[in-house]
Amino acid sequence: MTNEPLPSWRPGPTRQAIVEYLDSIGDVPVEDRVAYIDNDGTMWCERPGYVQLDFFAKELRRRSEDDPSIAQRPEFDAVLRADPGAMGDIGLAKVAVALAGLFDGSTPAEFGAAVDAFFERYRHPALGVPVASLVYQPMLELLDELRAHDFTIGIVTGGGTEFVRRISGPLYGVPAERVVGTLIGYELDRDADDRPMLRRTVALMGEANEGAPKVEHIQSQLGRAPILAAGNSAGDREMLEWANAGPHPGLAILVDHDDADREFAYESKAATFDDADKITDLAARLGWVTVSMRDDWSTVFPSSG
Amino acid sequence: MTNEPLPSWRPGPTRQAIVEYLDSIGDVPVEDRVAYIDNDGTMWCERPGYVQLDFFAKELRRRSEDDPSIAQRPEFDAVLRADPGAMGDIGLAKVAVALAGLFDGSTPAEFGAAVDAFFERYRHPALGVPVASLVYQPMLELLDELRAHDFTIGIVTGGGTEFVRRISGPLYGVPAERVVGTLIGYELDRDADDRPMLRRTVALMGEANEGAPKVEHIQSQLGRAPILAAGNSAGDREMLEWANAGPHPGLAILVDHDDADREFAYESKAATFDDADKITDLAARLGWVTVSMRDDWSTVFPSSG
Repeated sequence: MTNEPLPSWRPGPTRQAIVEYLDSIGDVPVEDRVAYIDNDGTMWCERPGYVQLDFFAKELRRRSEDDPSIAQRPEFDAVLRADPGAMGDIGLAKVAVALAGLFDGSTPAEFGAAVDAFFERYRHPALGVPVASLVYQPMLELLDELRAHDFTIGIVTGGGTEFVRRISGPLYGVPAERVVGTLIGYELDRDADDRPMLRRTVALMGEANEGAPKVEHIQSQLGRAPILAAGNSAGDREMLEWANAGPHPGLAILVDHDDADREFAYESKAATFDDADKITDLAARLGWVTVSMRDDWSTVFPSSG
Repeated sequence: MTNEPLPSWRPGPTRQAIVEYLDSIGDVPVEDRVAYIDNDGTMWCERPGYVQLDFFAKELRRRSEDDPSIAQRPEFDAVLRADPGAMGDIGLAKVAVALAGLFDGSTPAEFGAAVDAFFERYRHPALGVPVASLVYQPMLELLDELRAHDFTIGIVTGGGTEFVRRISGPLYGVPAERVVGTLIGYELDRDADDRPMLRRTVALMGEANEGAPKVEHIQSQLGRAPILAAGNSAGDREMLEWANAGPHPGLAILVDHDDADREFAYESKAATFDDADKITDLAARLGWVTVSMRDDWSTVFPSSG
């Protein structure tokens, strides 16, 4: 470790833009220093598939051993075959609701324990590493730097809120209440001693947390607008624009996956539907800072041990 | 000020139960030290009417000067006449939706500015004091003591989330994201420069935040169960029971309004519907700590200046 901030960020215009921005906000009241960071593809690796999808696929395989008929449901079949095309045809929201149904009636503690057990055994299918080694080291350093500048940090994810809450504390130092994701409703029940307890339902609360709903859900659940946001895909577009729409100077950071050697190289479309722009073109047009993983990061993943 | 904790709490079994409980949780991990506190009647005075209802009544009066026909709507008429019976007959949820409609289309900043302006001029109709003087001094000391024991504190209110967020920071030191209340939805819009902005809708998100929904909404918005909860009414029942339902020892605190001289004396029913029990009887049955405002608090309101 060095005393320089952002040690895994190579000197250059990207790192400089971040450092200069953080140097410039001395007059922004601390309660307005709010940063929202996407998870999949921004804080950790999302290829070849979302980690959360691996969790559900593993759960499905476990259950289909007892009951092979489970694979007849098209949503489950698509997940078991890890077929993004089939999932897209069915509709991701429909797939998500079907998968959430696997834990219908579970208590938060039961669901949490299932997620924890998954993470304990998880190894990335291509990189062979545990989940802590899928986090981008430069992004961890950015969180440190934001905290050093008295930011309140939220993780805003298209993934399941309760899934991401299990790792937001240990991996990012962000408490459960500052995770905003796609949310399954709860229902109060009573245990044998008539004490209240919660059970998961299969109802989505609000919409899936992508695009405009990210902004709407941040406001309703957290109540403060960001001056800084980071993301990597079309689902982050509105949140990134929002960081530049307030009364204070904002900073929107786009992580561009252009590093086939150390991670994966792929391109995100600028909008969820029908917009053929490359998101890096949109970033340039809107004054976002684009992070080239290949050029701007000297290290991608934390060194183990 | 003294160095003794809880200086406005008179020595006796109530104060002792709280101090002993806080002394007993040394083995509870810091991330499980979570306390949820109700607002109206627990953190501040709720009589003769909710402060938030004064806010809406004032707004209604202002608007009815321009357009007297507004008072023909039964919900608004009941609020303008400050008639709890009429509001109850219409249904509080229906009244709440009608009142929320007054700010349909407002941005969060516009709504916040209206609330701030109200608080600036507000004087309690009976006590003649500003809102900071309606907060219970012993409860502020309890929050301090909880923070000294590394608690994360949330304010869980039947009132409007965004209304209470305006005072949770300055009065209680609790940030916006840890206020869970009755929530109005938002919709993303675009300003003249095509930047994203939010507008309030008239749609309630989920149910009004009373009773079982308090527990459900805490889980979905904050994600952690409490080991300590404080409330004063039937709407807090499930949340208080929840504090005693976890793996760690819990503490449920009921504030009993029995001080006609310094505040107001009134009784809350134990359940929202059809339950004739006194809530203090229920508290005794369930092992809650009942706070007598008359006997347990040497001071009720902060001394001004």
